[in-house]
Amino acid sequence: MLRSNNLQKIRNTFLPALRTYKTSGIPELTEVRHNIKRGNYAELNGKDVSFFESLIGPTNILQDSTDDLQGYNVDFLRSVRGRSQLVLKPGSTQEISEILKYCNERRLAVCPQGGNTGLVGGSVPVCDEIVLSLARLNKILSIDDITGITACESGVILENLDAKTREAGFVVPLDLGAKSSCHIGGNISTNAGGLRVIRYGNLHGSVLGVEAVLANGKVIDLMSDFKKDNTGYHLKHLFIGSEGTLGVVTKLAILCPAISDSVNVAFLALNSFEAVMQTLKNAKRHLGEILSSCELIDAPSLAASIENNNLQSPIEGYPFYMLIETSGSNAEHDMEKLNNFIQLVMDKGDVVDGTYTSEPSKMLEIWKLREFISTALTKDGYCFKYDISLPLRSFYDIVKVVEKRAGHLAKRVTGYGHLGDLNLHLNVSCEQYSPELYKLLEPFIYEYTAQLKGSVSAEHGIGFLKTKYLKHSKSAEAINMMRDMKQLLDPNGILNPYKVLY
Amino acid sequence: MLRSNNLQKIRNTFLPALRTYKTSGIPELTEVRHNIKRGNYAELNGKDVSFFESLIGPTNILQDSTDDLQGYNVDFLRSVRGRSQLVLKPGSTQEISEILKYCNERRLAVCPQGGNTGLVGGSVPVCDEIVLSLARLNKILSIDDITGITACESGVILENLDAKTREAGFVVPLDLGAKSSCHIGGNISTNAGGLRVIRYGNLHGSVLGVEAVLANGKVIDLMSDFKKDNTGYHLKHLFIGSEGTLGVVTKLAILCPAISDSVNVAFLALNSFEAVMQTLKNAKRHLGEILSSCELIDAPSLAASIENNNLQSPIEGYPFYMLIETSGSNAEHDMEKLNNFIQLVMDKGDVVDGTYTSEPSKMLEIWKLREFISTALTKDGYCFKYDISLPLRSFYDIVKVVEKRAGHLAKRVTGYGHLGDLNLHLNVSCEQYSPELYKLLEPFIYEYTAQLKGSVSAEHGIGFLKTKYLKHSKSAEAINMMRDMKQLLDPNGILNPYKVLY
Repeated sequence: MLRSNNLQKIRNTFLPALRTYKTSGIPELTEVRHNIKRGNYAELNGKDVSFFESLIGPTNILQDSTDDLQGYNVDFLRSVRGRSQLVLKPGSTQEISEILKYCNERRLAVCPQGGNTGLVGGSVPVCDEIVLSLARLNKILSIDDITGITACESGVILENLDAKTREAGFVVPLDLGAKSSCHIGGNISTNAGGLRVIRYGNLHGSVLGVEAVLANGKVIDLMSDFKKDNTGYHLKHLFIGSEGTLGVVTKLAILCPAISDSVNVAFLALNSFEAVMQTLKNAKRHLGEILSSCELIDAPSLAASIENNNLQSPIEGYPFYMLIETSGSNAEHDMEKLNNFIQLVMDKGDVVDGTYTSEPSKMLEIWKLREFISTALTKDGYCFKYDISLPLRSFYDIVKVVEKRAGHLAKRVTGYGHLGDLNLHLNVSCEQYSPELYKLLEPFIYEYTAQLKGSVSAEHGIGFLKTKYLKHSKSAEAINMMRDMKQLLDPNGILNPYKVLY
Repeated sequence: MLRSNNLQKIRNTFLPALRTYKTSGIPELTEVRHNIKRGNYAELNGKDVSFFESLIGPTNILQDSTDDLQGYNVDFLRSVRGRSQLVLKPGSTQEISEILKYCNERRLAVCPQGGNTGLVGGSVPVCDEIVLSLARLNKILSIDDITGITACESGVILENLDAKTREAGFVVPLDLGAKSSCHIGGNISTNAGGLRVIRYGNLHGSVLGVEAVLANGKVIDLMSDFKKDNTGYHLKHLFIGSEGTLGVVTKLAILCPAISDSVNVAFLALNSFEAVMQTLKNAKRHLGEILSSCELIDAPSLAASIENNNLQSPIEGYPFYMLIETSGSNAEHDMEKLNNFIQLVMDKGDVVDGTYTSEPSKMLEIWKLREFISTALTKDGYCFKYDISLPLRSFYDIVKVVEKRAGHLAKRVTGYGHLGDLNLHLNVSCEQYSPELYKLLEPFIYEYTAQLKGSVSAEHGIGFLKTKYLKHSKSAEAINMMRDMKQLLDPNGILNPYKVLY
């Protein structure tokens, strides 16, 4: 337990670095940059503000001062900016219910906001939507010390939730870079992915129940403490991954697995993607139940991480690297399994070099190489970033195709990411933003992904920035069915407008 | 691999015994017994039959002969009987689409049917609905030998799918008694639970994609090969567990985990439910990633299994027993973990007697004691059966409460089931059906469960037989939202009428 906790603590020291890139400069208003026509919503007036003040108290309202509101209007990547004049910070489900009922009747548009760490512009207003911050719904309601079932409000910060469950011997089955800021409710609303999906599956499996408020203010209680609950339609899934457009998640129950006492990390070098596939196969077979991460890093990704972050790698000079993490309940067993696995893949000739360790500081050094790739590529000047799922056999082809297509316009074309979940982060860096390069990349990358029946958004969602690409991963019939759902649950379209289905 | 395959093979020999109980006698017509008023649907005529014949061919249609149709009209438990005059066996999604389009326009009611192994009357007609059998959609489309991702049509029998994935080194993450007959599509439509939920989670997590046909014949392609696919609303979950009332599942993709080479079974005796809880806690903590079953058996359950099935138990004379199964990738490691765990729980005094084994024949003997409980209780004469989820701390209280309540009217009041998933099978046996006892049990058991915020149907679903109890586990708002979904997707109510929301 000590080791994995230490690792977690040390890993969190990455976050400032991850969070500070691209913080200079305020982006152009989204309405202007993307030529958005404001929807036919009511304009906020003094009477509205008075109503909200009487409901939640003036200290829980932010307005007027641009400085105060900027953090709510601009996203983490500084790629979009709204011009909301009002932030509401209710403290209970009931208050949210009354706010939404009022807004629905008045036709006032609302943007629900968690930790505002999304990467597709889903968490900030596009125009002048009222920001509904969930930050005050931050109570952990219960952690069962036998089953690990945890209930909390949706504004609890992921890291805080994880820390509390760890005290009881469990971990939240979700880990991602933004954990020190993101809310668990936002994670659920966006079906966040991250590093633990290969081991614990996605949130549709681990979230046992939710409470959500619909656009008309109705509270839908779908809380449950049970993995097995076959009583009618499984409605909670409509609120997992619909990015706040169908309802506002206010509470949740999640099944937390037992903490792993033992953690090991291996960093392996391989000469071909065929060898990478074979090694993934053997990792699944031979590490089975203790495999907790299986990440791919290609040579240009590693080079960027080393050069731009001033890091050192224990191995260099190969086209592919894999970072494999195990976590389990018995250190000796895990190390023996890892030993056997590495022996096997080296005997087969798939892995040609590598290192492995259970030393926290050394594991940290290896993880840094992987986790700093994203910021390193941004330091090249500008970086086009894509988050896609692809079939294993064609997983890496797109990197080569895009490299050829981008030619001298790109500084680096790199592929890395959650190989074990078939989730590729395809990045194209250049010295400065190039409209010419942009046109070569989009919509090409999305069309290419669609041809392989991949997903144009693996874990980041559709938000505001990817709405026009949704059609590449979902059929017209499916999108129509989504529109029907939206119409049914939010007929006035007040919830997070311009997002997902815009 | 050998051992777990062997165990699987041997386990399947249980099935005939499980399947043959209560096969004598044809139940009264459901319409009569339950006083059901036929819905306002069209009556089938010769023109309809001619249309279906031209569409799917006369050899794929069953009609008229009562003998032929009986297997489709009567459920496995012989508790309900419809009077359908027509069974259609289409061979493709396209044919199903055209059948439903026609039925929807004609207002002909349809009962989709998989392996007809459901226990709540959901899979047979209530009145004269046309039976839409999925049996001919039995093609396995692909099994990826690296990722384990498997795609198939919905009429594939679970056991056949499992056998094929095992050949490729994977297992279907679902195992239940009816596996030799049930269809994977039916499993998905009912969100079937079973024995592997504690290890692999439920189907909402492991099903990656579905194709479904709506009531109006529209085909919704939600197939996906990815755990990470955040492109719009996660609509597939509407078809998982809605029991064929929102659409007919025709294809699916499911993530199959790697097969476990090593299996062990422990059978432990305990003196109190407090000790049971502590042992569950320690199993989760110390067996962690290799824990694959954690079942509870109380003394009267074991007694029934021994007496009525003529079995022998390695241990007797205690109030509680736990059957704990591990499966993992290394036999030596697993045995050592199990040894350490048993040492720990015996040192603590929670476990007072027990045995454990990795011998297939001995594991089989132990599993028999658990798996034959249900049939054993039926052999007492008549058995009232409840399948509920309850919070751990009050998991067993209901057995004692019901025992007191039933008094001399009951022969045995027993509790057993999937403790690790908080799923209790509460059974009350008696010499013959007693309306007096029935009135003492229902709605009491459902109301008691509701007070504890439990689930009135853990894994069996609502079907036809539990519709009036749905309100005990779902709020009026949630049920209204379900009705809205039904209205949206099946406005004429032709799909599996009288079920779930009746």
